[in-house]
Amino acid sequence: MHQPHPFDEAIRLEPQGEGLWRGRTHEAYGNMVGPFGGATAACALAAVLAHPARQGDPIALTVNFAGPVAEGGFDVEALATRTNRSTQHWTVQMRQGTEVVATATAVLATRRETWSALEPGFPPAPPAEGVPPSPPLDRVRWTGAYDMRFVRGPLQIATAPPAGERDSVSLLWVRDEPPRALDFCSLAALCDVFFPRIFVKRARWVPIGTVSLTAYFHADAALLAAVGSRHLLGHARAQQFRNGYFDQSAELWGPGGELLAVSHQIVYYKE
Amino acid sequence: MHQPHPFDEAIRLEPQGEGLWRGRTHEAYGNMVGPFGGATAACALAAVLAHPARQGDPIALTVNFAGPVAEGGFDVEALATRTNRSTQHWTVQMRQGTEVVATATAVLATRRETWSALEPGFPPAPPAEGVPPSPPLDRVRWTGAYDMRFVRGPLQIATAPPAGERDSVSLLWVRDEPPRALDFCSLAALCDVFFPRIFVKRARWVPIGTVSLTAYFHADAALLAAVGSRHLLGHARAQQFRNGYFDQSAELWGPGGELLAVSHQIVYYKE
Repeated sequence: MHQPHPFDEAIRLEPQGEGLWRGRTHEAYGNMVGPFGGATAACALAAVLAHPARQGDPIALTVNFAGPVAEGGFDVEALATRTNRSTQHWTVQMRQGTEVVATATAVLATRRETWSALEPGFPPAPPAEGVPPSPPLDRVRWTGAYDMRFVRGPLQIATAPPAGERDSVSLLWVRDEPPRALDFCSLAALCDVFFPRIFVKRARWVPIGTVSLTAYFHADAALLAAVGSRHLLGHARAQQFRNGYFDQSAELWGPGGELLAVSHQIVYYKE
Repeated sequence: MHQPHPFDEAIRLEPQGEGLWRGRTHEAYGNMVGPFGGATAACALAAVLAHPARQGDPIALTVNFAGPVAEGGFDVEALATRTNRSTQHWTVQMRQGTEVVATATAVLATRRETWSALEPGFPPAPPAEGVPPSPPLDRVRWTGAYDMRFVRGPLQIATAPPAGERDSVSLLWVRDEPPRALDFCSLAALCDVFFPRIFVKRARWVPIGTVSLTAYFHADAALLAAVGSRHLLGHARAQQFRNGYFDQSAELWGPGGELLAVSHQIVYYKE
């Protein structure tokens, strides 16, 4: 018997009618409270991609985490607000009962080959094979759903506050665990795989919650297929922590040096 | 007689009923086609901030430019999807007739003082007073609504393609012209003041259109008031141009070195 990958189970949506689906949180993607935000983002995108009116592949996805997602079932509604010749705009709402738990917008596009250029370089890193994987964290269940190999900036929770201020930069190889061929939904989830930067900066647990996440997809389906189930190189950093909110940005690179996606988020913290 | 500032005219919304407003494009914020995207973003935010159910100040704003905005009137509808103790989530739709021309989401928050930290430094730049303003561009009417003083990476359209590849970085002092005290709506518009990076990179006009713009606000109302009508320092760069779409990111700094907002966008191009 073929066992489905836990990620495919986590983003499985049962059709309930025109643009309406029913999903369910998956224990393999549990967070400290509720599900991993990347799984929620992937479900929002999955609803758009499963819609019969879909045209094109994702260019942009914004997910707003409106409130806690309880373990169990949820409804996802996707609505095409406008379809142009080469782009299509979507709004998505995720609900539990009458409560909105997340809203999202997505833009799909039909792409064609053009002049292309990349500005930042692929960050220097030893090959994934030479970097040991980090053990999953007991209190953050979803870390077991990824193979993460830190080149720089691992999560090191100190028993005492660190002597000096450290920066918030992490560089890591990462892929689904067990391995799974990359697609747009798993790439969306990987855009949220970077720990809240305040954990790295402060070397301690702090109450946090991502408020809004935006991902831009540079990869098309052919490039995702070429990457397959190999590790991606992820690079993340914060810009500013100020009065309860910080922003962080990240890039996800294919092992051949292709910039696949960039992501940005703003995160609530209590400190 | 007190003459209203053109920006206040551009974001003026007439109430039409519960969460519904009527606005009008303003010639001072005209773009090559339709209005300046920053003015559209500011109108979407203005509808949220004018809503009687509003709680808090903006933390995050995403605007999706779904289709061309024709000169003339438009309808804006703002809906609070969820109100929590310290955050509030909004969805916005902008329409002309039955066509959706833009969708947006916004998150408001009530902030309190916390431990804070800034990672990147204020970019080195001579004071605004020592940098000459750029003349407005005839074909881009909205450039006359801003005083822009380029330290690096001005828009220089070449008659022949440049010999080598240049980078896409710009550093500039910028404020409303005529001067106007900074607020959340004008800061949202300023988040889109950076020319599409492909114009800088290629030194020529290329058909473009911003598809989605996200702004994160680090400044609160007190900090905006302290900045007043002085110049902000803006810093923008692209990451990747690939098969019809590129992404760019920018920071807006107060003259005292405060990081007020960061913005990200993904832009269609034909090249």
